Amino acid sequence: MKNLVVAQSGGPTAVINATLVGVIEYAMKSSKVDRILGAKNGIEGILEENFVDLKSIFFKAEERERLSLTPSSYLGSCRRKMKENEESMIKRIIEVLRKNEIGYFVYIGGNDSMDTVYQLSNYCKQHNITDIQVVGAPKTIDNDLVHTDHCPGFGSAAKYVATTFAELERDCSVYQTKAVTIVEVMGRNTGWLTGAAALARLGDGNGPDLIYLCEKSFSLTSFLEDVKEKLREKNAVLIAVSEGIQDEDGHYISETIQNGQVDEFGHSYISGVSNILAEEVRKQIGCKVRAIELSLMQRCSGHLVSKTDLIESKMLGEKACECVLECQNGMMASVIRKKEEPYEVMYTAVPVEEVANYEKKVPEHFIHQNGHDVTEAMIQYLFPLIQGECNIEYENGIPKHSVL
Amino acid sequence: MKNLVVAQSGGPTAVINATLVGVIEYAMKSSKVDRILGAKNGIEGILEENFVDLKSIFFKAEERERLSLTPSSYLGSCRRKMKENEESMIKRIIEVLRKNEIGYFVYIGGNDSMDTVYQLSNYCKQHNITDIQVVGAPKTIDNDLVHTDHCPGFGSAAKYVATTFAELERDCSVYQTKAVTIVEVMGRNTGWLTGAAALARLGDGNGPDLIYLCEKSFSLTSFLEDVKEKLREKNAVLIAVSEGIQDEDGHYISETIQNGQVDEFGHSYISGVSNILAEEVRKQIGCKVRAIELSLMQRCSGHLVSKTDLIESKMLGEKACECVLECQNGMMASVIRKKEEPYEVMYTAVPVEEVANYEKKVPEHFIHQNGHDVTEAMIQYLFPLIQGECNIEYENGIPKHSVL
Repeated sequence: MKNLVVAQSGGPTAVINATLVGVIEYAMKSSKVDRILGAKNGIEGILEENFVDLKSIFFKAEERERLSLTPSSYLGSCRRKMKENEESMIKRIIEVLRKNEIGYFVYIGGNDSMDTVYQLSNYCKQHNITDIQVVGAPKTIDNDLVHTDHCPGFGSAAKYVATTFAELERDCSVYQTKAVTIVEVMGRNTGWLTGAAALARLGDGNGPDLIYLCEKSFSLTSFLEDVKEKLREKNAVLIAVSEGIQDEDGHYISETIQNGQVDEFGHSYISGVSNILAEEVRKQIGCKVRAIELSLMQRCSGHLVSKTDLIESKMLGEKACECVLECQNGMMASVIRKKEEPYEVMYTAVPVEEVANYEKKVPEHFIHQNGHDVTEAMIQYLFPLIQGECNIEYENGIPKHSVL
Repeated sequence: MKNLVVAQSGGPTAVINATLVGVIEYAMKSSKVDRILGAKNGIEGILEENFVDLKSIFFKAEERERLSLTPSSYLGSCRRKMKENEESMIKRIIEVLRKNEIGYFVYIGGNDSMDTVYQLSNYCKQHNITDIQVVGAPKTIDNDLVHTDHCPGFGSAAKYVATTFAELERDCSVYQTKAVTIVEVMGRNTGWLTGAAALARLGDGNGPDLIYLCEKSFSLTSFLEDVKEKLREKNAVLIAVSEGIQDEDGHYISETIQNGQVDEFGHSYISGVSNILAEEVRKQIGCKVRAIELSLMQRCSGHLVSKTDLIESKMLGEKACECVLECQNGMMASVIRKKEEPYEVMYTAVPVEEVANYEKKVPEHFIHQNGHDVTEAMIQYLFPLIQGECNIEYENGIPKHSVL
């Protein structure tokens, strides 16, 4: 028997803790695992030997149920990215794992975290280290990982976006005056989540009138023409726009006001594209206009998770744990869509080196040729991911959370 | 028997349609009422004789249930404010009401709408018009109407704010780096809704670290000192701030970038104070900082209504209908808090002239003397208003709405 460690990294999602619960529950049932440790703040917690005993904290099913419905990373996160072949850090990680008799490491995260899994597992392979197994479990609201039909966390964010667009449409359409509402959705390089705004059409309203994904180069002139045309048809125009839309030269539309600022990964800090577009509409069309950023709410609204996403996130945690215990070093748990109707999935594992540092864009056939909408094919792809609601536990009028 | 007309006005809330349902259900049971009409877009719909037959649309209880959980004004809204003693408009309204054999008019709205009720009912009194009764039913997420313990719509917005702060805290506290998150809450002149952020403390986290209501004049210097002090204690600092905070000279902090723009009522257009403060923190403290506006989501999140608020909103609709049928011209339905524990209310009516054009500020004893928090007394006042959750009907993964 050996110990297992699990950690979380990257930006939070509403169901990343369901994946953690999947790992814990699978490990609890295994005769191969002694202690189930959680490293605080991703690999930082491993480097600093900052562990918590998850088996004792989550011994009761009731506590695990609450954890799975707590948004954001219970164990904390980090943005520390391993530099290529950062041997000193890898050696330190291996030293800590061995010292703590840890043979299994499951890392829950997005693209950058999968790169860490790759480098660590690859080092072990190259140096014939067989006592340490490292496996990845995906998560990202961006839905941009390859070799998985979709990413856990995305379905809940998509459900939030679809629901919010349905509600915003109700709010925006009460007046008889001409008004434009521009809603900015997360997505630096991919428009998956922005496309989910179209799901609001499956309700009783009309959904967004215009949808701009960052896969298509953005023309301010065309945008203003599109808006003018919609304003001729109706009073309240509702628009979904990816935060990361770029002009034809590949410059972020938002860069004009945020230039020079970068986050911990060196990514440009982008935000505020809805404000920039609103200002243009105000100046050049002159009607009432409002910019809305769905901001962090779209990734942390645990009170509105998709049941499908919650179940799959947990299952992917179980799958990742199964892989690590079967010594499938360097793999990432992934989901395959087996059937469309009724929707059915199966869980598998793929080599993490085929995932890390790749990015899945919204494909051409999901984007309407008019450039300001998605296709029926994209709606069909997205539809099953937001289905189902969960019973959220409330106390004192607000949701109960598991807090470390 | 005479006909009854009901209309909705002002900014939407998540439960304004529950008040509409209260009016419809009470009127359906009354032998005094023949047709139950809805005027589209507030008094605009009356002036234009733009009516819908609510009794036939909402004949089934199931349809009324769905309506009560549909956010924003089903009948549409208007921002048209009656100028003082605007006799031509009043005469036209009376002409339309008589022509359509309407003896009862219930107007659901906020402060400006109550002014319309006042002017109309006052005109009738002064001119001995007794065949037309006008009564108001309150609604406003601002909670700023006097002579009512609180306003319908506020409790649901407060529940959204409290829940969102609890979730944002989970999201913001995952990293080990110093970061400030500034969340802007609606409230032009009153800080009621901003104060509701403190309810997040009743959960498993710590809630907001700093709360600035617009009742206290805002000093940028003190603010930056407060933030620096909190940053010495912890990594993730979460701040709630009213959109309408003003400096000691009474200038809106947000006016620096929005000056000159006014809405349909002549109010200054204010927005973006969180961005302004974030920029100051970035420049003068230098840590990571994010501005979040809860924007329209805080008033239209029908999927997260307070059950207490929903029930009271409906009851106030019933009360308003009772008053209008009892010919209590010029009254507004209101709620009185009878008991604190267990929380118990009763419904009454107050002369609308004592309500219109007054504004209830957050009282001194609800604001902490440190200037950046609320008191326990305010939390006790707010607590019952966000209690209880509703079963929301979902279809295709998003909430079902009643759409006209």
